[in-house]
Amino acid sequence: MPDEYAPADRIMLTPQQITEARARAAASLSAAGIALTSAERDSIEVADFGLSRLDELGLQLVVYLNTERVCAKELVLFPHQTCPEHRHPPFDGTPGKEETFRCRAGLVYIYTEGEPTHGAPAARLPEHDRDAFTAWHETVLRPGEQYTIQPNTLHWFQAGDRGAIVSEFSTQSRDELDVFTDPRIERTTKLADG
Amino acid sequence: MPDEYAPADRIMLTPQQITEARARAAASLSAAGIALTSAERDSIEVADFGLSRLDELGLQLVVYLNTERVCAKELVLFPHQTCPEHRHPPFDGTPGKEETFRCRAGLVYIYTEGEPTHGAPAARLPEHDRDAFTAWHETVLRPGEQYTIQPNTLHWFQAGDRGAIVSEFSTQSRDELDVFTDPRIERTTKLADG
Repeated sequence: MPDEYAPADRIMLTPQQITEARARAAASLSAAGIALTSAERDSIEVADFGLSRLDELGLQLVVYLNTERVCAKELVLFPHQTCPEHRHPPFDGTPGKEETFRCRAGLVYIYTEGEPTHGAPAARLPEHDRDAFTAWHETVLRPGEQYTIQPNTLHWFQAGDRGAIVSEFSTQSRDELDVFTDPRIERTTKLADG
Repeated sequence: MPDEYAPADRIMLTPQQITEARARAAASLSAAGIALTSAERDSIEVADFGLSRLDELGLQLVVYLNTERVCAKELVLFPHQTCPEHRHPPFDGTPGKEETFRCRAGLVYIYTEGEPTHGAPAARLPEHDRDAFTAWHETVLRPGEQYTIQPNTLHWFQAGDRGAIVSEFSTQSRDELDVFTDPRIERTTKLADG
C-alpha cells in the first residue's frame, strides 16, 4: 500500500463534503423517480471507508430498514465511484449477510470471487490500490437486472460513466463486521472539523 | 357471505384478463420509472385470490427474489384495488413473514389489527365483503413513506384514486401458508379456458 494513504496521514471528510455528497445523491435519486422523505434526504449516509477519497472509493446509502431479519437500502454511486472489496462473514450463528443488488439506474460492474472473467475488469481500478482488489468474476447490471451475492463472498463494485442507483435487498446488515481486503479501511466515516 | 360468490359458482380469470392486467401493471411500473427485464414483464403475477373480481380484490406482483432468507417484490394496485385481509403465520421454527411496505407511487391505505383509527376506513370497503375485514388500524402511505407489519398480524390494504406501487421488503414469502379472513379465498389464481 502506498505511504501517502497510510492511516496516520489520513484526511477526514469535512461536514461540507458530506453535505455536498448528500445533495448529489439526493438529486440522483430524485432524477430516477425514487421518492425519499425529507428526514431520509437529510440523513443519507456518506461512506468514505476511512480513506477520504470519496469520489474514487466511496458510497452513498439510504437505509430504508435494517431489522434482525431484513434489510433494504438504496446505494448511490457517482460515476466510477467504487465500493472497496469486502465480504460479510458469519455472525451470531447465521451464515452472514446474503445480499441482492438490483440496478435501478445507470450501470454497475460487480466483481465477485470465483472464475475470473476474461479481460476483466471493465471497471477502472483505482491506480494506487491494485493490491486491495482480488476478485475478478465480472457481472454487469443495467436497469432491471440483478445479482445475488452469497454470504462471506469477496466482492466489490463500481458505477459506470453516468453513476448508478442500486437497490440492495438483504438479511441483516452489520457493517461493523465487514472484512475489507484493504487493511487501511474503516467502515465508519470520520468527520473532520469544519 | 353472499351466495353469488360461493366457490361452486366462481368464475375463473381468463388468460386474456391476465394478459390485460399484466400490461396495465407493466405500464404503471414503467410510468414510475421502475425498470423490469422483459422476462419479468411477461411473468407479472396476477392474484385474484380465487374470487375472480380482480378490479376489486386483487393484486399484481413482480417477485424480484424469494430465497430462504430474503424476499423483495413490487406490488402494483389499480385504483381502489384491495388486497384482502390475511396474516403470515409462523412456520419451520420462524415467527412468520415480517414485511415492510414502502410506497413508491400513488397512495396506499394499510389496515392492521390493533387500536381502530377513528373514522376508518378511508378506503372503500367492497360492499359484499364487510365480514371479511376486521382490522381498522389505519396507516396511509404516500411516496417515500413506509410501514413494517410484524409476523402473524392481520392486515389488508387498498390503493387510492390513482392506484399505487409498493415495494415489499421481507423475510421468505410462503404465500401458500397465508391465512385469509375470508374463507372463500384461495391464494393461487386459477385460470379458465379461453
